[in-house]
Order: sequence, then C-alpha cells, then structure tokens
Amino acid sequence: MKLGRLNHIGVATPDLAASIAFYRDIMGASDITEAFDLPEQGVKVCFVNTPGENGTAGTQIELLQPLSPDTAVGKWIEKNPLGGQHHICYEVPDIHAAKAWFESKGKKVLGEPRIGAHGTLIFFVHPRDMGGVLTEIMETPKGEH
Amino acid sequence: MKLGRLNHIGVATPDLAASIAFYRDIMGASDITEAFDLPEQGVKVCFVNTPGENGTAGTQIELLQPLSPDTAVGKWIEKNPLGGQHHICYEVPDIHAAKAWFESKGKKVLGEPRIGAHGTLIFFVHPRDMGGVLTEIMETPKGEH
Repeated sequence: MKLGRLNHIGVATPDLAASIAFYRDIMGASDITEAFDLPEQGVKVCFVNTPGENGTAGTQIELLQPLSPDTAVGKWIEKNPLGGQHHICYEVPDIHAAKAWFESKGKKVLGEPRIGAHGTLIFFVHPRDMGGVLTEIMETPKGEH
Repeated sequence: MKLGRLNHIGVATPDLAASIAFYRDIMGASDITEAFDLPEQGVKVCFVNTPGENGTAGTQIELLQPLSPDTAVGKWIEKNPLGGQHHICYEVPDIHAAKAWFESKGKKVLGEPRIGAHGTLIFFVHPRDMGGVLTEIMETPKGEH
C-alpha cells in the first residue's frame, strides 16, 4: 500500500453547535460545512475546511456529535466528556484492495466497507492494531485530487 | 485570527522504531524524516510526510517517543500504553499575536513560546479550553507555503 492523503481528523464533541462556534470564533475557520446526520455511524457530522499549501484543500476536521448515548461515539464521549481527537482518516484509491491489505497484515478491520461522510466507501481499523489510533480508510471521491 | 494550515498531528508512541516500521510497512509511507531529540519537550521526534493535494505537502504525522517516563509525553504513555493521538498543530503567521489572541479569549496557554520541532516558535493550549484537544500553535517556517 502507498500512504494516501490525510483526508480528515475526526474530533468528537458533546455539542456540535458549540464546537462550530469554537472553530469559527476562536480558531478563525471561515469554511465550515452544513451539519448532517449519518445514522449508519450514529453521528451528526460537519467538516471544518483548513487551508492546504498553495491554495489547495487541507486536511479537514470532522466534527462528530453522537446521535444518542448508546452509539460508539456516544460511549466515547461518556469517557471523554469534553470531546477530543477520535480518529484519523486516510484516503485510498480502492477500498476493497485496502481492506484485503490490512487483513493480510493481521489488522482487525471493523465491519464491511460502508458509505461514509464523503459519500464513498469507508472502513475503520481497530486502534489496538494501529498504534492506539482508531484509523478510518476511505476511498477517494471520484474526480478529486 | 484566521485558521492556519494544519501542520501536523502529534502521535505518541512507546517505541519510535516500531512506529516508523508501522508507517513504512503497513501504511506505505515513503518519506519519513530522521529522528532527533527535542529535549525541551522531553521527546524523540520524527515526521511522516503525507501527500497533499496536487503534489503539495500534506499534514504530517509527528511521531513522539518520550525521552523518559517523567516527561509530559512519558506520563501520557503511562495512561495510554499503546500510544495514540496526542495533539493537533496549526500554523500561524505571528506566534506572539496568536498567544495574545488565545489569552484574550480566556484560553490557557501553557508556558512561553519556545522553539519546536520545525525550528520555529510554538506553544500549546490546554485541552480543557479547546474541546478536549491539546492544541499546538506554531509559527510558519519562513519561506514555506
């Protein structure tokens, strides 16, 4: 496998509206997408766009608020009530090839590829096998990069 | 303040050599910098370069191994023995203006600006005031971006 673009950092929050205000008013973000529900992952999501080099798009901050306490992110927030860094997401050209790669290396892929927040297939790999980092792998949206 | 480039994600590890091998052999990184000691922060450090859009430099992964157990990162590893996401670092054009900005907003800046891993001035802001995210602010190296 070849290391892909660092698409986003997932940051969990107990209060999406407060986090959006924080990124806008304190961090100075001018480009924050509309929030939407992603019921497959049990979260409400929006993206803070950060500037990359030379006018390109940088790595996004994905703000995640649990839709209910009994979701994966809901349980994470219970242990980390302030919120914080939740996962790191890298792009790959082919999600099925990437799944086969991680599995061939003995890494625990969490479930089958499913549609993620960017509308392409994604999966997560268990942090235990990834240096403590919950890692999302997503197929690069067609026509991007 | 205007949101700057997401320079790097700090990932702490109990074993830098093993983490370098992981990013090279599992994640497919081809560009990992030489490790060096940063005694001011109590860590040994190297950077995994990730690709940005259109051939630009992407957000880096900064691998951090504590130089001893009684450092800040050493204590963090004691609580998180696998390692994991430790901090997020954004660039600013002027470190002193950024410090004044965060302080004016009631955010706890941890110490005075000091030289960081990229050779420019940095400071950290307390995660309690930053949505649970330990946040590093660094002055953009001259001549970059």
